[in-house]
Amino acid sequence: MADGNQEMKLYSHPMSSCSRRVRLALNLKGLSSIPSFCIRFHSKFLTYITESHFLVTEIRSRICYEPVLKTNLSMYVISGLKYDCINILSIGDPEILKVNPMGFVPALVDGTTVVADSYAIFLYLEEKYPQHALLPQDIMKKSINYQVASIVSSSIQPLQNTSLVHSIGEIVSPDEKLPWAQYHIRKGFIALEKLLANHAGKYATGDEIYLADLYLAFQLDNAINRFNLDMTEFPLLLKLHKMYHQTPSFQQIFTESLEQNIDKSLFNFTKPQEA
Amino acid sequence: MADGNQEMKLYSHPMSSCSRRVRLALNLKGLSSIPSFCIRFHSKFLTYITESHFLVTEIRSRICYEPVLKTNLSMYVISGLKYDCINILSIGDPEILKVNPMGFVPALVDGTTVVADSYAIFLYLEEKYPQHALLPQDIMKKSINYQVASIVSSSIQPLQNTSLVHSIGEIVSPDEKLPWAQYHIRKGFIALEKLLANHAGKYATGDEIYLADLYLAFQLDNAINRFNLDMTEFPLLLKLHKMYHQTPSFQQIFTESLEQNIDKSLFNFTKPQEA
Repeated sequence: MADGNQEMKLYSHPMSSCSRRVRLALNLKGLSSIPSFCIRFHSKFLTYITESHFLVTEIRSRICYEPVLKTNLSMYVISGLKYDCINILSIGDPEILKVNPMGFVPALVDGTTVVADSYAIFLYLEEKYPQHALLPQDIMKKSINYQVASIVSSSIQPLQNTSLVHSIGEIVSPDEKLPWAQYHIRKGFIALEKLLANHAGKYATGDEIYLADLYLAFQLDNAINRFNLDMTEFPLLLKLHKMYHQTPSFQQIFTESLEQNIDKSLFNFTKPQEA
Repeated sequence: MADGNQEMKLYSHPMSSCSRRVRLALNLKGLSSIPSFCIRFHSKFLTYITESHFLVTEIRSRICYEPVLKTNLSMYVISGLKYDCINILSIGDPEILKVNPMGFVPALVDGTTVVADSYAIFLYLEEKYPQHALLPQDIMKKSINYQVASIVSSSIQPLQNTSLVHSIGEIVSPDEKLPWAQYHIRKGFIALEKLLANHAGKYATGDEIYLADLYLAFQLDNAINRFNLDMTEFPLLLKLHKMYHQTPSFQQIFTESLEQNIDKSLFNFTKPQEA
């Protein structure tokens, strides 16, 4: 429950960087999650957590029941306000289309308000739940945060998201997938490295965690772990990447996606993939 | 001058939908422009307006001087606050790289603050120059505006911008340029048509002009005039397109780009292009 009268739900995906940045924002704002159910993933398996805390996994019609470890579950239920986290595992799933006509995660349902897209969700959350501000007070520093969000969300992410990269593999060649993604990520990173040169502290725009960090953390993780980008020319971004991996609130989100029972090979472009 | 102490400049491009939406926002907020100079366009010609109001065009080393028509100039200098509009006509031009490390227009310089990317500029302007609000007061309606901005700026525009579409022509085939752009625009329009079904009035989210309209107007113009998209399945979007073309503040921006002395064939994908 987000407040006394409203139910809050986040439609998410464990490997989606857009979802992960929203989950981190909700955690920072003290809104922690109760995982609800995960449905459909390329029609291959179905995973959800029952009310009695059993992790149910159906793989090609074989159903496995597995108790959720207390340590695993406690990760989701910390303190403060709660929201249901519903993992939607395929683009265009009817469940997600009900709340986001684009068919993408993340989408947030807060009582009667439905907001899809991470940028829109951040701006909504910042007004509705001002605790732990995601934007600094200073208008110049704020604009740097907006610019980082825009570079990641408009100039990098749309050109390296899983479905687009797979479509490049189909219309050009499977060998073009990795160079295509690396080219667009690198172009954005060159700009980010320059943009942040005079603003970074411990984090992207100073010593506090702001919107820019939420965008950078998971984009950096994608670049390094999914697309094997050479980071030699980005010392500042690499320093930030290391800092995020040492910061507990970020670590929690990185760990969550690693622990999810999904086929991660579909999201990794550094190794040859099955047809 | 944006105020007594600060000079305001907008780095723009007459055919860039991102620049056009910012120019409209500035006009709505009473910040009108004085065109300054246009530089470089595929090294073919150079156009700028001198202080004495002569339009100077250099085409392949031939320099033409032409007095700016009073009616043409008056279009730029209306009333209220002023800003210099600097037309940058190639991505990665050194002039634009000074203010935006991505090398794209638009970029706004407001005194000592530099903000690049139209979304970032809108959020900056909305706080700094609250006159003629670009966002409604109601948080739910506001979130619809954010979502429209995100769908256009992350799910449509990056996949149909001129340089990306030309790169698809190179790596796949020139015949793939138009279908590629149409596919991605159509996907976004399906979502926008559904999203706005319960919110539109005279404009996208009611009877006032808001952020969503600024994003839609020039995206619709691109879809129809540059990419020849069949709009039959988008009656609401088509109705909005017609409304924008009947609204003076929008008409002014549509007309400006038509009057600019640049090679528009590079931006039109409906006809065969020169190699």
